[in-house]
Amino acid sequence: MSLAATNMRLRLPLLCIILEVILIILFGTLVEYNVDTDAKLWNANKNQSATRHDYENEFYYRYPSFQDVHVMIFVGFGFLMTFLQRYGFSSVGFNFLIAAFSLQWATLMQGFFHGMHHGKIHVGVTSMINADFCTGSVLISFGAVLGKTSPVQLLVMAIFEVTLFAVNEFILLTILGANDAGGSMTIHTFGAYFGLVVTRVLYRPNLDKSKHRNSSVYHSDLFAMIGTIYLWMFWPSFNSAITNYGDPQHRTAMNTYYSLASCTLATFAFSALVNPEGKLDMVHIQNAALAGGVAVGTAGEMMLTPFGSMIVGFLAGTISVLGYKYLTPVLESKLKIQDTCGIHNLHGMPGVLGAVVGAVTSALASPAVYGNGLQRVFADGEPGEWNAQSRGGFQAISLVVTLGMALIGGLVTGFILKLPIYGAPPDTHCFEDGLYWEVPGEEEGHHELNEVATPNETEKLNS
Amino acid sequence: MSLAATNMRLRLPLLCIILEVILIILFGTLVEYNVDTDAKLWNANKNQSATRHDYENEFYYRYPSFQDVHVMIFVGFGFLMTFLQRYGFSSVGFNFLIAAFSLQWATLMQGFFHGMHHGKIHVGVTSMINADFCTGSVLISFGAVLGKTSPVQLLVMAIFEVTLFAVNEFILLTILGANDAGGSMTIHTFGAYFGLVVTRVLYRPNLDKSKHRNSSVYHSDLFAMIGTIYLWMFWPSFNSAITNYGDPQHRTAMNTYYSLASCTLATFAFSALVNPEGKLDMVHIQNAALAGGVAVGTAGEMMLTPFGSMIVGFLAGTISVLGYKYLTPVLESKLKIQDTCGIHNLHGMPGVLGAVVGAVTSALASPAVYGNGLQRVFADGEPGEWNAQSRGGFQAISLVVTLGMALIGGLVTGFILKLPIYGAPPDTHCFEDGLYWEVPGEEEGHHELNEVATPNETEKLNS
Amino acid sequence: MSLAATNMRLRLPLLCIILEVILIILFGTLVEYNVDTDAKLWNANKNQSATRHDYENEFYYRYPSFQDVHVMIFVGFGFLMTFLQRYGFSSVGFNFLIAAFSLQWATLMQGFFHGMHHGKIHVGVTSMINADFCTGSVLISFGAVLGKTSPVQLLVMAIFEVTLFAVNEFILLTILGANDAGGSMTIHTFGAYFGLVVTRVLYRPNLDKSKHRNSSVYHSDLFAMIGTIYLWMFWPSFNSAITNYGDPQHRTAMNTYYSLASCTLATFAFSALVNPEGKLDMVHIQNAALAGGVAVGTAGEMMLTPFGSMIVGFLAGTISVLGYKYLTPVLESKLKIQDTCGIHNLHGMPGVLGAVVGAVTSALASPAVYGNGLQRVFADGEPGEWNAQSRGGFQAISLVVTLGMALIGGLVTGFILKLPIYGAPPDTHCFEDGLYWEVPGEEEGHHELNEVATPNETEKLNS
Repeated sequence: MSLAATNMRLRLPLLCIILEVILIILFGTLVEYNVDTDAKLWNANKNQSATRHDYENEFYYRYPSFQDVHVMIFVGFGFLMTFLQRYGFSSVGFNFLIAAFSLQWATLMQGFFHGMHHGKIHVGVTSMINADFCTGSVLISFGAVLGKTSPVQLLVMAIFEVTLFAVNEFILLTILGANDAGGSMTIHTFGAYFGLVVTRVLYRPNLDKSKHRNSSVYHSDLFAMIGTIYLWMFWPSFNSAITNYGDPQHRTAMNTYYSLASCTLATFAFSALVNPEGKLDMVHIQNAALAGGVAVGTAGEMMLTPFGSMIVGFLAGTISVLGYKYLTPVLESKLKIQDTCGIHNLHGMPGVLGAVVGAVTSALASPAVYGNGLQRVFADGEPGEWNAQSRGGFQAISLVVTLGMALIGGLVTGFILKLPIYGAPPDTHCFEDGLYWEVPGEEEGHHELNEVATPNETEKLNS
Repeated sequence: MSLAATNMRLRLPLLCIILEVILIILFGTLVEYNVDTDAKLWNANKNQSATRHDYENEFYYRYPSFQDVHVMIFVGFGFLMTFLQRYGFSSVGFNFLIAAFSLQWATLMQGFFHGMHHGKIHVGVTSMINADFCTGSVLISFGAVLGKTSPVQLLVMAIFEVTLFAVNEFILLTILGANDAGGSMTIHTFGAYFGLVVTRVLYRPNLDKSKHRNSSVYHSDLFAMIGTIYLWMFWPSFNSAITNYGDPQHRTAMNTYYSLASCTLATFAFSALVNPEGKLDMVHIQNAALAGGVAVGTAGEMMLTPFGSMIVGFLAGTISVLGYKYLTPVLESKLKIQDTCGIHNLHGMPGVLGAVVGAVTSALASPAVYGNGLQRVFADGEPGEWNAQSRGGFQAISLVVTLGMALIGGLVTGFILKLPIYGAPPDTHCFEDGLYWEVPGEEEGHHELNEVATPNETEKLNS
Repeated sequence: MSLAATNMRLRLPLLCIILEVILIILFGTLVEYNVDTDAKLWNANKNQSATRHDYENEFYYRYPSFQDVHVMIFVGFGFLMTFLQRYGFSSVGFNFLIAAFSLQWATLMQGFFHGMHHGKIHVGVTSMINADFCTGSVLISFGAVLGKTSPVQLLVMAIFEVTLFAVNEFILLTILGANDAGGSMTIHTFGAYFGLVVTRVLYRPNLDKSKHRNSSVYHSDLFAMIGTIYLWMFWPSFNSAITNYGDPQHRTAMNTYYSLASCTLATFAFSALVNPEGKLDMVHIQNAALAGGVAVGTAGEMMLTPFGSMIVGFLAGTISVLGYKYLTPVLESKLKIQDTCGIHNLHGMPGVLGAVVGAVTSALASPAVYGNGLQRVFADGEPGEWNAQSRGGFQAISLVVTLGMALIGGLVTGFILKLPIYGAPPDTHCFEDGLYWEVPGEEEGHHELNEVATPNETEKLNS
């Protein structure tokens, strides 16, 4: 099949090359090694102070966490979205493309807003983690528009979303002084509502023409479980990746671990409960079991306790399954929000829950509980001037700001993406790899694209 | 298909919710952050002693190992069991469910037996690793009953097995003072024989009615290889995860690496040798190649040397392949032990081998070889009072205790699981996802579950 | 199907057992724990100097990197090669076998050439990484002959290639004093040209008899993407695994990260550009996106800057896609080089590019840029006697030596592999698992192997 309207031959190469050239020029102009990655600075520093040993290089504190986050971004998100029967190449492939672009662009945008030193952006493993975090937000939004967008559209969306992410992050972390190490607000709430507004603006009334492809097959669900399990396993690393060294990093990982375990039991319980025959639904297991990680993204570094983490995880799993069952159909029919992956249930509501839990946990923090560790969790937490209530208030304001930024940003971006110049798929060919990929077997010509749904079909000849 | 007898709509949610509520209450009552995860304690401690730097937090010593173990539990075990053609959802999904439950329950049980401080259980990354270890034992037993049990049965099995695991571990490590860092005895021998007795008690004389589903298809074998390879790669982390810092952790990882490499060559050799046409069998490669990790689970931390590790690995691979070929059919026909995954060959015999190797290596240990490192490997190994023979004896007694605990525990648990209240699958529908899962395509209704041979087949009806 | 000529029943077991016995004997004679893994040495050392803490054990600097490299070798290479529709078992399985052998043999060969201490080879995590690196080289060559060789042939190839790898590495790193931490020359260039010469010598004029199996199907391409993504994500760990502690390790990982991100955009751009309909080709995405990691294998530890890394990555992705499109067909038709995986495009040309970039970057190094870090990157880089030009020259000579060694070594090895004693597949049965594996379904008997055995087989009906 080759529709001229969706032909990427010029559009995609041009956009990729132009973007990469711009990135290279900006990196050449603006980006420098930080103290921990620069041969001269690190070794000068080492000799002078006598206290910086090689094992104190931030690499050893953060690189294992970075790699886990990296796996979540590329394998986790990438494979989670392969559940569609005929969209595996695009799910993993476009995920790969927009992530590779976003992490470079995020390095610049985040560096511009909160990493400038004498006019230069300093980079190291922490900036790499932050760039991956920002990329995660774009991939969440990708989940809402999955199957209905061209790669060019996705790259354009990434340009805007990364930029707004950096602005929002700057407002929250720098201006409001909020805590959000695991990104319940900055990553999940922002990414989810941004994506939902984009998909609302791109609403397709005739999407049911591609309905037969908008579902899974047996093996595609197993590929998706690879994504799920990796996200689930490494979420403790995600939430703890940029917390302070020592107890905060350790505690965050552990709180997330307990939240996820509890969330998983809630997910299985409610998945069976909402099904008339008591059968489990792969959609719930693949997604809702992860909500526990989202929901402790803000409070995970605090003294939430395993007990608190498990309660939050249980709630997150519950609302997520109920959202898939009862809310998603309503969002589509009433609000015209076509949310392919159900990001509202996995990132939206659990993200808001996480923001609220973070605000409450902040408001309950006290020197009695945190001791000298208070200022290691809350940057301005000197015991003398500590005001837990105002801290909780700033956290709540941060949620409101995030929602506002996501809604307005998504609206503007949505209308930009609606321009008919990006080669978006027609309503009849959504959720279909064959539009943008050479799919094996297709060149044969003895069947039409819209007749042959999946490779599995050929198997019937065997039976 | 919907059999009332296997309907999970009330049973599974009720059990999950009750268990999680109990867990949450017990965590709220009993569990506290340990020194390395508590904001107040860690920072107080740091200020006083001046010797505890953030890089000395146990997180940095153990968290990368923990993540590798975590991958083994959820991806390794989960995907290893997807080899069945029509049981992939259940393999990964039930693995996920019972692991998420077990790690919480294990935290309490292990904490109760050997982690209480002033009436509280202290948790940190080491307790997380230990909980994952205990979970591993349950997943081994799951392999024996795979395809023949409902999720409710599996959760009930986990409740009992985790509890008995903690008791056995307490007897071995605390009372007998045995070494078993990688769990040849506590994890593998215990999990294997426990599971074998359970499956014996649950013997199904008419299981051949589901025989056509009790085998692999091409792609399911590739999914299973994902599990195999992850288990194989991360076994060095598994065996070294809770050894002492420094040389023991380093040495254990390396010994395991050599044992596994040698085991792999033995596996390929004997797999081809026992086949009339000299063809390799995926069952052997998927399983026996891992036996080398099991068999150095006890002695890996000792001065076993790469040479010794390779001999042990070679033996383990050999007995494992021979077990699959010659012993498993006999176990089923003569002893009525239906061992779906062949855990006797991967965990049972290699676990016993590992226990014996551990006893012998302990009995050969001496201050001349270990120097000041003796007491870092053997807790009571002060050079003056060291008695290698008695140490070897205690190791041997530990194996006997473990076998006894596994047999009795498995027997009791098996009879409890035999009660007809858990919604176990009928003999005609074993190894079948459709009983407990919404399987894609199934809602079509124009074919019967037991008519459908492979997952792919159902898809043709969908098109 | 059972061809006597390809029956492995005696050949494979005999070779595996003999090799492993030889390895075990040599390990017993020659291999010892190094200071960081020996109980006596590490603890003696610790007590005396008072400066070696447990956290200074090389395990904590290198083990996370080792595990990432390990994943690349076993999952990355293994699954990358599963793209063939009917060769998944062999791709993952033979990869597993020859890697398990090669890492043991490499430990001996590399130890013999540059790890002997008083007649003993000292082993620890660094030797484990180096052994995995050498194994990577063999697996690259495996990609060229994929589907056309028996496991016995592959093991014989590994024996020779590992040995020559160690010789070449010794010449480059020890005699010429070259830098090549990520192995652009030692691993990629060597492995690629060695493999290309071997496949040239093994040229099969009638390979088109197996042409219908020499392509992918939908799900096999998704399995291959698992390999791709893991290689891509962990390449920063690969290149930095054996660099010096501190800034070099940190910088190398970061440079590689940027090179790969840039390379990915180039890959997508040129993949769409070279296709008449603008469609992306999975072969390019699976392979060319990785070329950025290869191309900074030498210069990654130097002060290449993110800017420089991105330029190199972009070039690497571009030449790699163009190579797949325009060069590979010519290599086959004109030079009779049948390169199954296109290793010339992924490892060959990008490896040479990496060597050149390394030579240039070395020649531009100066104390002004590196400060006291100069000698931590360049072993002989004392500021006083530093001669960047001669350093660049030695790097260039190293490339020439590597190419020479690869060509001659490949030639000799190729002729040895041509002997008709290894059970190589006939031209009609290349790219076919059924020759060496029990493939599920085959026992049914109602179809012949060459008529289609597994779900995949039906796909040929499509062709």
